[in-house]
Amino acid sequence: MADLIYRVNMTNLSFKIEEVPAQWLGLGGRALTSTIVAQEVDPECHPLGPNNKLVFAPGLLSGTSASNSGRNSCGAKSPLTGGIKESNVGGTSAGIMSKLGVKALIIEGMPKNENVFYQLHVTKNKVEFIEVPELVGLDNYAVLDAIAAKYDKKVAVMTIGRVGEMRMNLANISVKDPGGKLRSHGRGGLGAVMGSKKIKCITVDAENYKEVTIADPEKFKEASKVFTKALQENPISGEGLPAFGTNVLVNILNEAGGLPTRNFRAGNWEFAENICGETMAENIKARGGKTTHGCHAGCVIQCSQVYNDKDGNYLTSGFEYETIWALGANFGIKDLDLIAKMDGLMDDLGVDSIETSVTLGLAVDAGILAYGDGEKAYELLSKDLPNGTAMGRIIGSGTHILGKIYGLVRVPTVKGQGIPAYEPRAVKGQGITYATSTMGADHTSGYAVATNILNSGGHVDPLKKEGQVDLARNLQIATAAVDSTGMCIFVAFPALDDPKCLPALVDMINARFGCTLTIDDVVNLGKTILKTEHEFNIKAGLNSADDRLPEFMKYEVLPPHNVVWDFTGEEIDAFWNF
Amino acid sequence: MADLIYRVNMTNLSFKIEEVPAQWLGLGGRALTSTIVAQEVDPECHPLGPNNKLVFAPGLLSGTSASNSGRNSCGAKSPLTGGIKESNVGGTSAGIMSKLGVKALIIEGMPKNENVFYQLHVTKNKVEFIEVPELVGLDNYAVLDAIAAKYDKKVAVMTIGRVGEMRMNLANISVKDPGGKLRSHGRGGLGAVMGSKKIKCITVDAENYKEVTIADPEKFKEASKVFTKALQENPISGEGLPAFGTNVLVNILNEAGGLPTRNFRAGNWEFAENICGETMAENIKARGGKTTHGCHAGCVIQCSQVYNDKDGNYLTSGFEYETIWALGANFGIKDLDLIAKMDGLMDDLGVDSIETSVTLGLAVDAGILAYGDGEKAYELLSKDLPNGTAMGRIIGSGTHILGKIYGLVRVPTVKGQGIPAYEPRAVKGQGITYATSTMGADHTSGYAVATNILNSGGHVDPLKKEGQVDLARNLQIATAAVDSTGMCIFVAFPALDDPKCLPALVDMINARFGCTLTIDDVVNLGKTILKTEHEFNIKAGLNSADDRLPEFMKYEVLPPHNVVWDFTGEEIDAFWNF
Repeated sequence: MADLIYRVNMTNLSFKIEEVPAQWLGLGGRALTSTIVAQEVDPECHPLGPNNKLVFAPGLLSGTSASNSGRNSCGAKSPLTGGIKESNVGGTSAGIMSKLGVKALIIEGMPKNENVFYQLHVTKNKVEFIEVPELVGLDNYAVLDAIAAKYDKKVAVMTIGRVGEMRMNLANISVKDPGGKLRSHGRGGLGAVMGSKKIKCITVDAENYKEVTIADPEKFKEASKVFTKALQENPISGEGLPAFGTNVLVNILNEAGGLPTRNFRAGNWEFAENICGETMAENIKARGGKTTHGCHAGCVIQCSQVYNDKDGNYLTSGFEYETIWALGANFGIKDLDLIAKMDGLMDDLGVDSIETSVTLGLAVDAGILAYGDGEKAYELLSKDLPNGTAMGRIIGSGTHILGKIYGLVRVPTVKGQGIPAYEPRAVKGQGITYATSTMGADHTSGYAVATNILNSGGHVDPLKKEGQVDLARNLQIATAAVDSTGMCIFVAFPALDDPKCLPALVDMINARFGCTLTIDDVVNLGKTILKTEHEFNIKAGLNSADDRLPEFMKYEVLPPHNVVWDFTGEEIDAFWNF
Repeated sequence: MADLIYRVNMTNLSFKIEEVPAQWLGLGGRALTSTIVAQEVDPECHPLGPNNKLVFAPGLLSGTSASNSGRNSCGAKSPLTGGIKESNVGGTSAGIMSKLGVKALIIEGMPKNENVFYQLHVTKNKVEFIEVPELVGLDNYAVLDAIAAKYDKKVAVMTIGRVGEMRMNLANISVKDPGGKLRSHGRGGLGAVMGSKKIKCITVDAENYKEVTIADPEKFKEASKVFTKALQENPISGEGLPAFGTNVLVNILNEAGGLPTRNFRAGNWEFAENICGETMAENIKARGGKTTHGCHAGCVIQCSQVYNDKDGNYLTSGFEYETIWALGANFGIKDLDLIAKMDGLMDDLGVDSIETSVTLGLAVDAGILAYGDGEKAYELLSKDLPNGTAMGRIIGSGTHILGKIYGLVRVPTVKGQGIPAYEPRAVKGQGITYATSTMGADHTSGYAVATNILNSGGHVDPLKKEGQVDLARNLQIATAAVDSTGMCIFVAFPALDDPKCLPALVDMINARFGCTLTIDDVVNLGKTILKTEHEFNIKAGLNSADDRLPEFMKYEVLPPHNVVWDFTGEEIDAFWNF
């Protein structure tokens, strides 16, 4: 069965099932969403207007048995950055869509009636538009429950909460994971785009699916084995991440002086111990949670976890370093349990836990919150935000807009998106990624922390300028390609250090589709994706002045290394020389 | 006495008096502020950070006896548009600064101590930095009173209210006018820049000033006579404006189908009669106000007025069409007295009456206010806004940010600045000015309404595309030059129709400085100014995608003419071919 394009028009509630155009055949995930957005969306359109499109595309290897291949990409013009956005997610949607033969789901238009929300129900060669007044105003877990009650079988669920209905920049599209918890198409306000199209949730029925077709099953199996071994033998993906999750990074970044603290006023925090991965793992063990847990079927890294409170009650899962950092060091909460409770709340609300938490950090400068006042912050998030009070709307607009509203100068954003977890002044390669990424400040788009701090793929001194632009460029190119395979970004660690890993990945793609790609082809794919995205952004109104870190990082000295951001504009712009 | 540059550094509270560099000698007003900002301000700097500069420069003819020459320019990087800004104002500051020999006042840096506000007191070769805790939290008229009590003589006063102290985008810099009322450096949030530099007010002591030097007094007198006559004999500047103020335009635009109504949903309003210039003039006559009143010494047009309530108590002055339109047709208030009361309040608060009122129009779409609910809007402006409540901050951020916060699509802004009073779909030449102006949507930067609607300088059909780009270009070039002379923009009407007007203006400049400029030189000055500003904007991060009207105007048909905005990007970009 050939894959097909499912195209939905929300203006007249119609759909078409289309053959995949030849030029899209070899694309998946980010390569496909970014290509479709670039080809079909007017870069000058309003991101929340009828001419934006929301595109979902599973990765090339999604739906297969390849380890860690269960990522689904979502793309659109972002209301947060004003540029192109791709956000990929674990959960069950990539696998189910792939097995149903959905190469991409393209959602266009906007209903004339603003008062109705729909569930899109996707089945074989069909999309139903179901009015769901009973789901309006519900948060994510309630939607999952309602859908579970409605279908007596396994369906993929992508949903938005109230914040998405209200089209706020913080809104994610949340996806049901294999454990019945939530994963997020985070960053960039894709949930607001879904809300603007009056879609409360999308369900994909898995009943009649088949396994995806593998052109050369033997070759696939062999390559898959090599690839899995590489993942398991790498010290980061095979040991560090399973043991402590991504939160292994708190102590590492703190020691490196790259843990942004008090809204990016220092690079280390005296209370790091309270919130670090080691503390988290101890709590989980003592309280009967799970230290390892996969965000999608086939994950062999299992960096997720289930974190319970002292009484053994569920607080959150997918408890990531970046969220813990933002609520901890940057906003000042010293109590990991409260951070977990807020993380769980953000899952349920369907808001980006990085953007939300970085916004809280800035809200301290605005005088809205006291540093570390987690109780008041919890109230803001649980009451004001989902009810859309004036203050809820302010927080819901994200860091950049909060800075505008309060006339603040120390606003940690690039292209309007909050800077995550790694101080660019002290981890300069990451700073180059933040400045140049087509996605706005996005750690996942070129994780130079790997080579600056973790010595993965060699070492480039994080405090020096030398080599950072090349490092960030190479990583962003590779990441764009990996984001197209359906692979989790953490395959980068073995890919950087184990010479067998990347060839095995390419072999799996070739075996799946019966093609003969080389590693160079994959690198070129990454380059093409970045250029496509960059060109879209320029047409959308961004230019090189947007490839910059916040100005205050140029003149404000960051302890403990007492460094500033010292790249010239010209040096940064050299990123695009490829 | 040669003119001098007064340069103030707020970081260390110091000042320097400098010779005027040769390249600035022939510049004044907008030409000078934009040149200084372009030369000295990093386009990538944060507008509210220490590297922005606030520049005041009187026009070339300010301080002379030339009619209508009393305009003062203020320039900076704008926190509202992110680009360069020049805003000129009547009042007493241009004359007093000129007579004191201040070619430009350049304010740099930012105090380390955020808790202190200063009065800058400018006298001959001296600037004093006076801590003014007693003025903090006061609105404009209270500041004027305090300054009047402090100095037993006439001083120029430029001040900000609470909204400026809080660095909101709506904040003006307000200037005392000859009648003791206020004129505004409006649009673009220059009051926020002044607030960011912790300057509550600037006073210029006029005690020891001399008349400005005129190189050839006889020639000046003669040219001045011709110029004044041209102003007085033009039907618009000599009759329409003195009789009804700028508010003569309500009926004219309503009949032309170009009066934006209900947040730009139609081009005419059934209640135009309630708020039109004729109604206003009747009220003024019946209540003992003033139909004519000059915003600065030497004005022969006298388009300002004093508008009283039914009991003869002062409500407002400088009661402009754009404000009346925005609160009337666009937001829905049918009671001209309430509009006047709100206009007076906005003067006192020091907020831009166009941006504020266009924001209220959008607030209806956001569900914050009901259409036409002036009482609630008054409460918002009088209580929430100056007290900086969450809702006050939202309104105080202006139209563009309000649209972001509420996820709205029908947001009438260009480059983040609210579109004034003339429907671009029905007055297409004005639409081209809005799209291309370096200032964001700004009617004064190239008033194509003149030729589209008022048949001044010929006629170009407002509903057709033909000729609009050339019209807007010529007007913007001429306006940039006029904004440099210190002349009020309304000299454009005789300049467009009376062949003696423009030569007389150039003769006055030549007589003042003993130079030999031609009309071509003046046109070239206008071109240079626009190019300087455009280049700054590009370096600041704007590009041709920012030279666009809001997308909804492309697909939403505007009654009564049932027109859309139908210019392609390419057609608009041809504006810059000069």
